[in-house]
Amino acid sequence: MEYQEPTLQDVLDARRTIASHVHRTPLSHYPALSRLVGAQIYLKHENYQVTGAFKARGGVHLVAHLDDDERRRGVVTASTGNHAQSIAYAASLFGVDATIVMPEGANPGKVEAARDLGGTVVLHGKDFDEAREHVETLAREQGLRYVHSANEPHLIAGVGTATLEILEDLPDADVLIVPIGGGSSAAAACVVAKVANPEIEVLAVQSEMAPAAYRSWKEGRPLALDLMQTAAEGLATRVGFELTQTILRRHLDDFVLVSEAAIERAVATLVEKAHTLAEAAGAAPLAAALDLRERLAGKNVVLFVSGGNISPAQLRRALASPNSEG
Amino acid sequence: MEYQEPTLQDVLDARRTIASHVHRTPLSHYPALSRLVGAQIYLKHENYQVTGAFKARGGVHLVAHLDDDERRRGVVTASTGNHAQSIAYAASLFGVDATIVMPEGANPGKVEAARDLGGTVVLHGKDFDEAREHVETLAREQGLRYVHSANEPHLIAGVGTATLEILEDLPDADVLIVPIGGGSSAAAACVVAKVANPEIEVLAVQSEMAPAAYRSWKEGRPLALDLMQTAAEGLATRVGFELTQTILRRHLDDFVLVSEAAIERAVATLVEKAHTLAEAAGAAPLAAALDLRERLAGKNVVLFVSGGNISPAQLRRALASPNSEG
Repeated sequence: MEYQEPTLQDVLDARRTIASHVHRTPLSHYPALSRLVGAQIYLKHENYQVTGAFKARGGVHLVAHLDDDERRRGVVTASTGNHAQSIAYAASLFGVDATIVMPEGANPGKVEAARDLGGTVVLHGKDFDEAREHVETLAREQGLRYVHSANEPHLIAGVGTATLEILEDLPDADVLIVPIGGGSSAAAACVVAKVANPEIEVLAVQSEMAPAAYRSWKEGRPLALDLMQTAAEGLATRVGFELTQTILRRHLDDFVLVSEAAIERAVATLVEKAHTLAEAAGAAPLAAALDLRERLAGKNVVLFVSGGNISPAQLRRALASPNSEG
Repeated sequence: MEYQEPTLQDVLDARRTIASHVHRTPLSHYPALSRLVGAQIYLKHENYQVTGAFKARGGVHLVAHLDDDERRRGVVTASTGNHAQSIAYAASLFGVDATIVMPEGANPGKVEAARDLGGTVVLHGKDFDEAREHVETLAREQGLRYVHSANEPHLIAGVGTATLEILEDLPDADVLIVPIGGGSSAAAACVVAKVANPEIEVLAVQSEMAPAAYRSWKEGRPLALDLMQTAAEGLATRVGFELTQTILRRHLDDFVLVSEAAIERAVATLVEKAHTLAEAAGAAPLAAALDLRERLAGKNVVLFVSGGNISPAQLRRALASPNSEG
C-alpha cells in the first residue's frame, strides 16, 4: 500500500485544526539535567499533554478529517495505551464511537482512562501486535474504520505540531531525541525539523529489548521480530511500519538502543532533577542522551518526553532502581 | 504596617506584565479522581509552572515592579523552597541580585534549583521562620530590599493570575480548594474569585501539624504557634501573616485541616489517578476534598496543585503509604 507522506504544510494545517483541543506544551530547560549530560538539556513536556501523551495531537487531527461515512460507522484501533486514549478522546470530541483493542496485560490505568474517555475497550491478545491483528478482524466484521497507529498521514501531521512548537521555542536546537514505538513521533519530528532546518539532528531511541523499528531502519525494510520484552509499553512493537519507516529512512540521522535498566534510571532521574513524571518511553531519550554524552557535549538537546502515563508500580520500581546518576 | 490589598485590576495588570515569563497552565478534568470524590474534579496544574510552582507568577510580578534603586541594591528573602526559586528566577530575568535564606533542612532539590537560577543561597535556622528572622538582619546590614513571602501586594496580584485562568477555563466552577503556607495563593484566589463570582466557594487547607494560618483565621488575628511539624514544606509556617490574613478574614469561606497521612496518600493518588507529580502542599487540596465528600457532592471542584517539587525520598514514602483510596 502506498501512503502519502505528510508535508510541513499538512502540519501547519493540523495545528489550526487541533489548537482548541490540545495543549501547547512547555519546552523547559533543566540546569541539573544539563550538568548530568554535559549539554543544554530541554524537555518537551508531552507528558503534560491532554490524555498524558503526544498521541492526542495525532488522534484529534485524524478524527477531525474522517468523512461522514467513517464517522457514522465508528473507528476501531489497537493500542498499548496512549494511542487508545488519544483515539477515545478524539472520537468523543466529534461524537464518533471508538472501539479500542488493548492487549490483556495492558497498564490498567491506561485501560481505565480509555474507558473514561468514552471508548469501548476490548482486551485481546498478549501484546500490541496480537491486539492489532484482532482489530483487523473487527474492522472487517463490523464495518468500522480501522485506525492504524502509525500508517496514517493525518496522525503523523498532527503529531508534528509538537516539533513546530519546539522549533519556535528553541530556534537554535541542535539535536532532538525521540522515542520510537510505531514511529509516528520520530517520523513527524523528521518531517518538520528537516524542512525547517536540515542542520538539526534527529535521533531515535528504542529499548534493546524491543528493537523492531531499529532493526527495520538499519536493514532498510520493515521487519517483524520476536524479541519484544520491554517494560516500556510505549516502545513495545514487534514490527516496523511502512509509512513511518519510509520517512525515517529518508531523514533520521541515527537510531540508538538503550537498556531497560537505563530507562528505569532515567525515570527516577527525571523525578529527582526535573520533578516530572515520565513513563518509560518518555524517559528513554534521557537514557540515550546519557549514553551519548561525548557526541552531545555542549549542544542544545531536546528530549521528547512523549508521555507521563506511568503506573504507581512502575514508578515504585524505578525509584528503587540503583541510580548511577546520583 | 498597613498594606494595600490588591484588586482585580491589579491582577489583570499583572497578567500583562508576567505573560511572557510564566506558563498559562492547564486546568484538567480527571474522571478517576471525580469518581473517588463524588464530584467533578479539576486540577489547576501549577506543578507544571515555571520553577515547578505557582510562586513564579508572584515573583516575576514583584521584581518587575521594583524601582531602579531596589534593583541596584538587590533583594533578599526567606523560603522553604518554592518562593526561593520564584525570586531567584524573577531576579535573573531582570538582572537583579537575589540572596535567599533557606532553613538548614531545606529540600536539597529546592536548594540546588534556587542556585541554578542564579540565587545566592544562605542556609540558616531550623525552619522557615528562623530563616525569615535572619533575612531581616541581612536586609538591614546589607541594604537589600526585603521581599516578604506573603505581605507583598504585587506578589499576591501576580499569583492571582492563576485564578483568572481557572475562571476562564471553567466558568461554572463551584468550589476552589487552595493550600496555605503564607497564604498568598488563597488570598489571591479570594481577590479574583470573589469579585468575578461571589457564589464560588474558596476553601483553604493546611496540615493539622502546622495550623498557624488556620488558627489565625479562626481567631481573627495573626497568631504565632509552636506546632510546626508538617513534612509539607510548602505548608510550613509558624505564623499567620497580616496582609494575607486580612484578605482571608474578609473573603475565605472555610478553612480545613488534614492529616499528614492523608496528604501522603493524596500524593500517591495523584500519581495513580492523574499521572501527575505534586509536592505535599500541592496534594493537600485533594486530601481535603476526600474529607469533604458530602459537602462537595456533584459540584465542580478545582484543586489548586500549587507545586510539584517533591524529592524522590518524599515520593518513595508517599508511594509506600497505605493507600486507602485504592
